[in-house]
Amino acid sequence: MAEIQGYAALDAKNPLAPYRFQRREPSDHDVQIDILFCGVCHSDLHTARNEWNNTLYPSVPGHEIVGRVTAVGSGVTRFKVGDVAGVGCLVDSCRSCASCREGLEQYCETGFTGTYNGSAFGGSENTYGGYSERIVVDEAFVLRISHTDNLAAVAPLLCAGITTYSPLRQWGVKAGHKVGVVGLGGLGHMAVKIANAMGAHVVLFTTSESKKDDARRLGASEVVLSKNPAEMAPHHNSFDFILNTVAAPHDLDAYLALLKRDATMTLVGAPATPHPSPNIFNLIFKRRRLAGSLIGGIAETQEMLDFCAEHQIVSDIEMIAMGDINQAYERMLKSDVKYRFVIDMATLKD
Amino acid sequence: MAEIQGYAALDAKNPLAPYRFQRREPSDHDVQIDILFCGVCHSDLHTARNEWNNTLYPSVPGHEIVGRVTAVGSGVTRFKVGDVAGVGCLVDSCRSCASCREGLEQYCETGFTGTYNGSAFGGSENTYGGYSERIVVDEAFVLRISHTDNLAAVAPLLCAGITTYSPLRQWGVKAGHKVGVVGLGGLGHMAVKIANAMGAHVVLFTTSESKKDDARRLGASEVVLSKNPAEMAPHHNSFDFILNTVAAPHDLDAYLALLKRDATMTLVGAPATPHPSPNIFNLIFKRRRLAGSLIGGIAETQEMLDFCAEHQIVSDIEMIAMGDINQAYERMLKSDVKYRFVIDMATLKD
Repeated sequence: MAEIQGYAALDAKNPLAPYRFQRREPSDHDVQIDILFCGVCHSDLHTARNEWNNTLYPSVPGHEIVGRVTAVGSGVTRFKVGDVAGVGCLVDSCRSCASCREGLEQYCETGFTGTYNGSAFGGSENTYGGYSERIVVDEAFVLRISHTDNLAAVAPLLCAGITTYSPLRQWGVKAGHKVGVVGLGGLGHMAVKIANAMGAHVVLFTTSESKKDDARRLGASEVVLSKNPAEMAPHHNSFDFILNTVAAPHDLDAYLALLKRDATMTLVGAPATPHPSPNIFNLIFKRRRLAGSLIGGIAETQEMLDFCAEHQIVSDIEMIAMGDINQAYERMLKSDVKYRFVIDMATLKD
Repeated sequence: MAEIQGYAALDAKNPLAPYRFQRREPSDHDVQIDILFCGVCHSDLHTARNEWNNTLYPSVPGHEIVGRVTAVGSGVTRFKVGDVAGVGCLVDSCRSCASCREGLEQYCETGFTGTYNGSAFGGSENTYGGYSERIVVDEAFVLRISHTDNLAAVAPLLCAGITTYSPLRQWGVKAGHKVGVVGLGGLGHMAVKIANAMGAHVVLFTTSESKKDDARRLGASEVVLSKNPAEMAPHHNSFDFILNTVAAPHDLDAYLALLKRDATMTLVGAPATPHPSPNIFNLIFKRRRLAGSLIGGIAETQEMLDFCAEHQIVSDIEMIAMGDINQAYERMLKSDVKYRFVIDMATLKD
């Protein structure tokens, strides 16, 4: 075991603070990664503050990890010392259930092991995430990074990227499709870039007039102020797919009504209190679907990283020092970030 | 024009009563059908009492029609005098939009013409339904009936049958699938019979202990009391598809949690007030889908009728006289019917 430096929440009420803990030495199939950059996901804040009532303390968040391999176990075949590597939301799963066998470890029937906060379905040992010097992960859950520069901006792909890429692929988004993206935050800005790279005609829905120019710069063909019925009306019954990234409770019907017959709106934001109940007539009268999606499996995360490297897609980020994390959380709560904070882990040693 | 006898609601508050009105003479492509039997759908009651706030009065309900052809226009090719024929929920549509061209007239972009109460989306002339002696319909919207007896029990297939058959087909139900049916009423009892005939393992969910035996007789392999968590729990994450036929607001999460990953629950009941808002985590954590479905198109209705004739499926009915319709509505409100009222139209002449 090696003692390393990190940042942890010790309880729900206090700010994150420096925290020393043990990482295992790499075993035969492990890859040891010295962390260069770690993105700041809203889930980090939910977990640090126990907003999902499932936090194991101490909690070391962080699951958008890019770093450099500094050791490998004897059985590791896909990574060598010096490689750039990534770790996302999962570091293990049962590897034997139907979902795991299909490469959908995020839906592991017994609960995948999260990069932090242990098992997705509770009851297991805690795990410590990317707000730390180093991480040791079985190579089956380590991603190759083929981006050659701007690695800090690659980090958010490991959660925000795959969370939006996976449903866009799942529902067959392709060139010529009209795709809506609801919300321009950490997830939404990735969805705009990725859907645009897939060839879709992307319409971004926002409540902020101020985000219109940015949305176009990021790849949206159209931007609609969702609170303006006159802007919404021309889009009724016209979308092949809508990806809704907004976690705050809101009127789903305003978007369901924009879907074509047989089209789907997928929710990837998880509100702490329910959305207003959708009007079932909006589903029945056009045979529409409301769906959910959770991050992505390891194979699809690799596919996403390769797709993003090929299309030169990274996240728009604001770099922070580790010591700035608590202020960053406060700014994130006000959506005051364009569009993802990333921690420069070199600052952990300062 | 020919004056005929029917039964109509003249306003939302008064019972249905005898009413005389005009039917057109058959034009070139029309089929004139003397009505033998007409099923009683809950939509008839909703419309008669203006519960969807869209009723055109006088309202002659009835869209589960079986009768005998008594005249055909010169251009009619598929029907001749003496044939048994059926009419369901639609008597016309634009025939040119994408949905109509795909044979999905129920999703006609400009609004199909309902068998009663005019255009599905309002604004057009009223139409008069099957609570009447006779109906005249373009042959493109007339169905062939290949059942050779028990024609009264065939009538409900025209709405209850297609409303359940269509989503079962849409979501690919087949032999070996585990299929849930929620609710054992007019729709639910057809869903059990049809899903069973498709080879599925059918589990019926009901709140009534008293319906258990009947559900098994109709084709359910298992019956679950939905209010008993101990009966629900073993079914978590196990269904390939659930067809929810209950129109009363209820807890959708109890059923969403029973779906496998990537499986769908389709709602065909339209509640007058919303269901409690579903927990989005139930969608996200297994990539499940909540969908809707509306009756079926003409081609699929014909396919359903042929399927039911081949599998000797009809509705379980209770025959009534036309004059009993108001009492039948009251009993329907108490779910006191096994499982569909059908009006013997010969009684209209009494």
